[in-house]
Amino acid sequence: MRIAVVGGTGKEGYGLALGWARAGQEVLIGSRVTERAVRTAEAVNATVGRAAATGMLNRDAAAAGEIVVLTVPYDAHETTLKDIQEAVRGKVLVDVTVPVDPEKPRHLRIPPGGSATEEAQALLGPETRVVAAFQNISHAYLDHGEASACDVLVCGDDADARQEAIKLAGLLGFRGLDAGPARNARVVEGLTILLMGINRRYKAKGAGIRITGLPDQ
Amino acid sequence: MRIAVVGGTGKEGYGLALGWARAGQEVLIGSRVTERAVRTAEAVNATVGRAAATGMLNRDAAAAGEIVVLTVPYDAHETTLKDIQEAVRGKVLVDVTVPVDPEKPRHLRIPPGGSATEEAQALLGPETRVVAAFQNISHAYLDHGEASACDVLVCGDDADARQEAIKLAGLLGFRGLDAGPARNARVVEGLTILLMGINRRYKAKGAGIRITGLPDQ
Repeated sequence: MRIAVVGGTGKEGYGLALGWARAGQEVLIGSRVTERAVRTAEAVNATVGRAAATGMLNRDAAAAGEIVVLTVPYDAHETTLKDIQEAVRGKVLVDVTVPVDPEKPRHLRIPPGGSATEEAQALLGPETRVVAAFQNISHAYLDHGEASACDVLVCGDDADARQEAIKLAGLLGFRGLDAGPARNARVVEGLTILLMGINRRYKAKGAGIRITGLPDQ
Repeated sequence: MRIAVVGGTGKEGYGLALGWARAGQEVLIGSRVTERAVRTAEAVNATVGRAAATGMLNRDAAAAGEIVVLTVPYDAHETTLKDIQEAVRGKVLVDVTVPVDPEKPRHLRIPPGGSATEEAQALLGPETRVVAAFQNISHAYLDHGEASACDVLVCGDDADARQEAIKLAGLLGFRGLDAGPARNARVVEGLTILLMGINRRYKAKGAGIRITGLPDQ
């Protein structure tokens, strides 16, 4: 699969890109600055020992990817979505954004559109299927989910798109779970703020969540 | 400890009362109808084999309890809070309410006050310390947490009150975790709706959550 990681030069984007490259996928790393994307792709390739990743502008990555993953800070969310809007039409966009308030990053914030995921879906329109995923996973685990016991909760209004994101999680070693409609992203995004607080209070580095009580357990 | 369970005749209230009775505590079961409270207390006592529980009106249970646990449907939340308001003054109120919409119970609902917990705190005023807890635990596990791997996330604006609720969870065999301010109850209450959806989708009965990645694990 050809996976675009828009905003792929941050910690989350790098972790995801590295994990998918390790899993044998082709990764397109996007950035606002081509040179930064190229450097990050080189770092991924040096780590996995093959030319798995290519760096380019966000819009070009989104255009070339079969599935597009968005990992930008919330204050760049709307601008980036507008930049890639045409390029993602007809595709699945996996939104990893948590609506953190830069002034009060520890404070749970419900954004005007309910969640970043719902805002992305509203902005991109129905031709792009938006799903929320990976918000609750510490970047320390992103490239090798099997080392954590965390689950990836996937929300979005299109059931097939949720299944695609669940497969992407599986490639990284995570159990992805169908967590329902886009509206539920309010909970999944908010959980990240709650987990950050638990990290501080319990001196943990990568608190995550696991769903218990499922039949296969 | 003398624990009042207001709305203690429902499945959640009964499970909690039974668990605390098993753990050697004195339990006051409240209801709008004395006779129903008395019957539920008799059922608890018959199960644990001692006179651990007493049934009475909600307001009387709240007045006699050292700590008060509220387990009513959301549509009875405000009325019940007004009924017990004077009786809980100066105490810790543990709110188990999930703001389910009776017309669309599968649909995540953000209530006017942000969360049931924040609404309770606003209504009762600062002399009563409100904490959210136990919303994510299936009633099938409430009285014996050790059989599940679920954690109890505790939110509220008073740190000491959060510790009291964490102790109550421990009495039932659950690991209680400090999940931060009352505002975070938006996530904890919403998680219940998400878990109910996971129960349906994965044919589970008591999906719950566990926090992973803490130092003691």
